[in-house]
Amino acid sequence: MGKSAEEAHPVKAFGWAARDQSGLLSPFNFSRRETGDEDVRFKILYCGICHTDLHRTRNEWGGSKYPMVPGHEIAGVVTEVGSKVQKYKIGDRVGVGCLVGACHSCDNCVNNLENYCPKKILTYNATHHDGTITYGGYSDHMVANEHYVIRIPDNLPLDAAAPLLCAGITMYSPLRYFELDKPGLHVGVVGLGGLGHVGVKFAKALGAKVTVISTSPNKKKEAIDHLGADFFLVSRDPDQMQAAMGTMDGILNTVSADFPLVPLIGLLKSHGKLIMVGGPAKPLELPVFPLLVGRKIVAGSAIGGLKETQEMIDFAGKHNITADIEVIPIDYVNTAMERLMKADVRYRFVIDVANSLKAA
Amino acid sequence: MGKSAEEAHPVKAFGWAARDQSGLLSPFNFSRRETGDEDVRFKILYCGICHTDLHRTRNEWGGSKYPMVPGHEIAGVVTEVGSKVQKYKIGDRVGVGCLVGACHSCDNCVNNLENYCPKKILTYNATHHDGTITYGGYSDHMVANEHYVIRIPDNLPLDAAAPLLCAGITMYSPLRYFELDKPGLHVGVVGLGGLGHVGVKFAKALGAKVTVISTSPNKKKEAIDHLGADFFLVSRDPDQMQAAMGTMDGILNTVSADFPLVPLIGLLKSHGKLIMVGGPAKPLELPVFPLLVGRKIVAGSAIGGLKETQEMIDFAGKHNITADIEVIPIDYVNTAMERLMKADVRYRFVIDVANSLKAA
Repeated sequence: MGKSAEEAHPVKAFGWAARDQSGLLSPFNFSRRETGDEDVRFKILYCGICHTDLHRTRNEWGGSKYPMVPGHEIAGVVTEVGSKVQKYKIGDRVGVGCLVGACHSCDNCVNNLENYCPKKILTYNATHHDGTITYGGYSDHMVANEHYVIRIPDNLPLDAAAPLLCAGITMYSPLRYFELDKPGLHVGVVGLGGLGHVGVKFAKALGAKVTVISTSPNKKKEAIDHLGADFFLVSRDPDQMQAAMGTMDGILNTVSADFPLVPLIGLLKSHGKLIMVGGPAKPLELPVFPLLVGRKIVAGSAIGGLKETQEMIDFAGKHNITADIEVIPIDYVNTAMERLMKADVRYRFVIDVANSLKAA
Repeated sequence: MGKSAEEAHPVKAFGWAARDQSGLLSPFNFSRRETGDEDVRFKILYCGICHTDLHRTRNEWGGSKYPMVPGHEIAGVVTEVGSKVQKYKIGDRVGVGCLVGACHSCDNCVNNLENYCPKKILTYNATHHDGTITYGGYSDHMVANEHYVIRIPDNLPLDAAAPLLCAGITMYSPLRYFELDKPGLHVGVVGLGGLGHVGVKFAKALGAKVTVISTSPNKKKEAIDHLGADFFLVSRDPDQMQAAMGTMDGILNTVSADFPLVPLIGLLKSHGKLIMVGGPAKPLELPVFPLLVGRKIVAGSAIGGLKETQEMIDFAGKHNITADIEVIPIDYVNTAMERLMKADVRYRFVIDVANSLKAA
């Protein structure tokens, strides 16, 4: 266990923290480090609520450190920069996503894939180089090395852009890496939540024909009329699924629940790719013959590197892609977590930090 | 059910066939079609015994048609060519692998991937365009459209080259497609049988560092001293496996038995690829988190197209790659099947058809 930031650091900070695995959040005084030579400090205006925050505050994946200030979809305005900072100046619109550190020397770091660095430092619930615990964006300000700071395009509102820093890159990166970014390909998106709805937008902007695959028939109208999907498949309808067999070049599966792989593999064409971006806790059943006879792939992908995250949000700026959000005050956060657990949000909660977080 | 070849075709043929799911083979008179305009007829000199032959003769995968003449690693010398045949002449050294037909119009066929054509016609136990059943290479001669005939390089002996037509392409194709063909990569090969031993040879010739992963410590000396593998891992030794974690760019898994995926995925570096070329009957347990955190892939691959099969055997000719074989007379075939079931062969049985198959 490292030292807590409030012991080690001089700059007072304030946020909301979970105190135990009940996950209930409440006001919390802590501190952050001084602005180092390469650091950018920014006032947090908005922070998205990612499903990970729910898992982590309740210790559903193990390893939760309390008190925990969650939040890794953080957007705001620069208030201070270190003497060696090159990319940012006071007043710039910036954000921080899931990462605040990595080793910068391994193969992954050298290849701008800090997200796969074995020593990557997550934005909250991790241990920083100096031994302190990292605290996330449900708080008044942030400080991070400029390498981990993303510039948010001028035309994107900060509240609706914030979720792109996790949900956006999580969907964008596999579309690129697995070569599902060629116009005319048919891409499936399983699950129409925080990840899925931005996945539809990115896949469409990349020129794909997009099918949403969902258990909820009542999401069809929204998926097609509002999000721009081309088709909608009810995964529980065997006739619909059968009719779509062998039609997709790739599928992004955002569902963390135990979802059977066989029908999804069946939806793929030969050489098709099923990409898991949600992490079911239990192993899934993988049938091997369907992979063999179609040279199909099941793969995983987790967020993206910093270079690609900037590329993603610049692409979003160019194509006017943002998340569909419900903006909430910080004192609604525990209710929001309950609603998130029931998937009762279209499609991302974003905390209006600047206007609702009041120092105790 | 189609007509049997003996009803439909005029050219007498003789081979050994399985009559029922006991799988026992015995002499069998049948017939083959006349040499069509685009057909090549050849005298069979050698035919390899693939593990598939064992599964099929015993109906272990269902769908077996009896009488069944197995064999899809067939090598011989051309005796007759149709009027429109362009690539072959009498006396040429040729072979036929797993395929004798496909639709020639689907995306896969257009891309020289006849092996993934939904209408592909297998060399035996399948139904030909004219409705007759296909018969394989445990027989005196073969006739096939020249598109499905492979030229065997002059420097390769026909007996040891025959298994390349199935085992060889099964290993070569995924090394190419999944980009494990770059010099200096670290490639694992799970299982040192008919597939595995040629996989080691191809991976080495492509410039990889090769590790054999096997349950049998007694195969180590052979793998390294004789086949040229660089390292040998006993998969049941947790210390050896632990020491090799995160070191491999790709793994070709030839094992059809229920083999746990978790340790194999663990052996991969980030972005590593686990390619299944053997087909376990039961679904395997797939843990998703290890895929996510390393952007790893589990995929399948099945033989290769005709163009690539020719490329594979030309590559084998250039690098003097053949299978390690035990040549047997046809009347030993039932014993060979029993030994194959116990993996008691190094590494492929090949039937000396020309010298041992006598017409009844």
